[in-house]
Amino acid sequence: MDHPDTEDQALRRALVAEKHAQATALLSAHGLDCWLTFSREGSDLLLPFVMGGEELVGTSALMLFADGPPVAIVADYDVGQVEDHFETVLPYSLDWEGPLRDVLAERKPERIGINFSEHDHGADGLTHGLFLALVDALEPIGLAEALVSSEPVAAAVRAIKTPAELERMRRACEITIRIFDDVAGMLKPGLTEAEIAGIFRERMQTYEVGPAWEASYCPTVFSSNSAGGHHAPGTSRIERGDGVRVDFGVRSEGYCSDLQRTWYLLGSGETAPPAAFLRAFDAVHDGIRIAAETLRPGVSGQAVDAAARDLLASRGYTFTHALGHQVGRLAHDGGLLLGPNNARYGARSGGLVEPGMVFTLEPCVGPIGLEENVVVTETGCEFLVEPQDEVYLV
Amino acid sequence: MDHPDTEDQALRRALVAEKHAQATALLSAHGLDCWLTFSREGSDLLLPFVMGGEELVGTSALMLFADGPPVAIVADYDVGQVEDHFETVLPYSLDWEGPLRDVLAERKPERIGINFSEHDHGADGLTHGLFLALVDALEPIGLAEALVSSEPVAAAVRAIKTPAELERMRRACEITIRIFDDVAGMLKPGLTEAEIAGIFRERMQTYEVGPAWEASYCPTVFSSNSAGGHHAPGTSRIERGDGVRVDFGVRSEGYCSDLQRTWYLLGSGETAPPAAFLRAFDAVHDGIRIAAETLRPGVSGQAVDAAARDLLASRGYTFTHALGHQVGRLAHDGGLLLGPNNARYGARSGGLVEPGMVFTLEPCVGPIGLEENVVVTETGCEFLVEPQDEVYLV
Repeated sequence: MDHPDTEDQALRRALVAEKHAQATALLSAHGLDCWLTFSREGSDLLLPFVMGGEELVGTSALMLFADGPPVAIVADYDVGQVEDHFETVLPYSLDWEGPLRDVLAERKPERIGINFSEHDHGADGLTHGLFLALVDALEPIGLAEALVSSEPVAAAVRAIKTPAELERMRRACEITIRIFDDVAGMLKPGLTEAEIAGIFRERMQTYEVGPAWEASYCPTVFSSNSAGGHHAPGTSRIERGDGVRVDFGVRSEGYCSDLQRTWYLLGSGETAPPAAFLRAFDAVHDGIRIAAETLRPGVSGQAVDAAARDLLASRGYTFTHALGHQVGRLAHDGGLLLGPNNARYGARSGGLVEPGMVFTLEPCVGPIGLEENVVVTETGCEFLVEPQDEVYLV
Repeated sequence: MDHPDTEDQALRRALVAEKHAQATALLSAHGLDCWLTFSREGSDLLLPFVMGGEELVGTSALMLFADGPPVAIVADYDVGQVEDHFETVLPYSLDWEGPLRDVLAERKPERIGINFSEHDHGADGLTHGLFLALVDALEPIGLAEALVSSEPVAAAVRAIKTPAELERMRRACEITIRIFDDVAGMLKPGLTEAEIAGIFRERMQTYEVGPAWEASYCPTVFSSNSAGGHHAPGTSRIERGDGVRVDFGVRSEGYCSDLQRTWYLLGSGETAPPAAFLRAFDAVHDGIRIAAETLRPGVSGQAVDAAARDLLASRGYTFTHALGHQVGRLAHDGGLLLGPNNARYGARSGGLVEPGMVFTLEPCVGPIGLEENVVVTETGCEFLVEPQDEVYLV
């Protein structure tokens, strides 16, 4: 839950201005004359980038142009949501089609990018019903044919974080680590996975942040003796001699973190986890390290994935999922993946890394959950918060 | 934030079973052989009705058939999310297209409903990019032409609440009233709108429920001296002699409430609000009463709207928005509206009311915010919680 105040409103205005400038430059670079985000009931997941929130109720057309100031067409009761961000706001009382045709007939864009993508969910915000409504509206002025995918622009606006976005993401990561630290002090044998998850929830309330994904699965808590996969924390109790793996992130100021940490509860007489546990931890840890050393502008998502995958294979471990995904306004933010070239991931892992992208690195195996968040710099990458370098002991 | 436990899982199973039975019956009635909800990253807003949640990460095809058991095709890591609800679950590791073609080639549906609608956002869950991916996948087996809108089925599944859904909605309304009551005890001159909103937020945490819509606008708090429209609670202070109008709802167990209540802070020497305030309150209150008397199966959304609109007009008041919308998993749940026949609302207000629909009634004017939630019965309608009959005084 975000708690708006006066300061937030100024921050939001600055952030949206940064994103508009970025998008306008991208339009020219990708041969689009207009980027049209077309939405109702705040349904399009690109909305926050063009207006800083998603509170639009009526059918809305938010347009950035390569060659001039942006225009918003919104229902009269939605004007307050967009007037900070658009030089021209055209409110309508009954009918959005007329004003939309008027603006486009005057500005004459030849290529209008709209938010759809077959392979990238993060650039696929337009519903099919709204697409049909838009085609109906633009056919009479001969512009239905001008509609093309905005993917090159939308995916980059989503992926390439501006300074204001990176500040928010660092703060989200810092709050997440603070919560991990708080919980660490409360872990003890006999707690169930569900009880541990409950402590995380209580901490989110304390810090006034929300979960980074579906609340019932954020966090996921696995004790070493539980089965793998995405599932809600259950009734298994953690006992001495168990590992505990937690996948957790928060949403704060509109941006997400997505981190994993691993604990071990020393058994009686133990001074360290078993050798096999440590070996797996080191493999995952070193996989993250080599991935971070590989990750820089210009390398492919597949090359970064391969660096970690090969290292883990050389130690006798495999992971079937992708090494990492982008993080931003969503925990799974779409766009370029750090993943293998196969039928599941190939369409999204072949592209090249760019500065400003934020990725997870998570070559997790069995009881070991390590997941770090890194931002790509001009020359390499930086961890958003200190990575976990040793098994945390209870 | 929902807090899952063992009981919730059994309740969820029962609720989804009710919805599957309802949907299957509707398929035959509307000439569809299959209802296909096609989603990735939990993007389709119909998902909760077919699987009880929205936690699917991979590309997923969830199919109900008019003539046989349902089938889910999901990524292997998503199996746990659907196995309670689908007799057949076909997990894939890399490729969803092959299994989808196999199932449909075997079941041979002639009309496959998919979730898109030009006019009803509540039935418009499929993104345009996923639509294109689906067409690509089905063309090789000649089934792309079988894809039609699922709207008649999806909108009814969404709108017609089963007994388990109504129980949840009643509980959401009861928690909302409890929070209104708690806040009433804390209202006092000098508080800002934002501070009052903060009390609501703190109460939501106490009762472990989330906001029914975008957190920064839930609640909206207007003091009599503030401008109208949807906007975030601001810095205006409530003073003696002011009205306070609050629009607020919670999301609890996956279902929303959406209520409004009105207070008046007596000025020094006052024993009642000013006559003009009371007159407006009575008009809104009586508008709700006559709408509730009109609302029953078989009347049109326009007729119910007209009943309230005419009454308010006879007292010299007008409201430009629709009288009411449906409530369910979303606060603005889509489907039939109680609204006038004009360019903004006409496409959604001409249909007929059915038993099991839940509507808001909110003919609000100026400083008076009254909004009630009613469920349509076989013969009329019932308020989900006690309506507000008098101005609350502070």
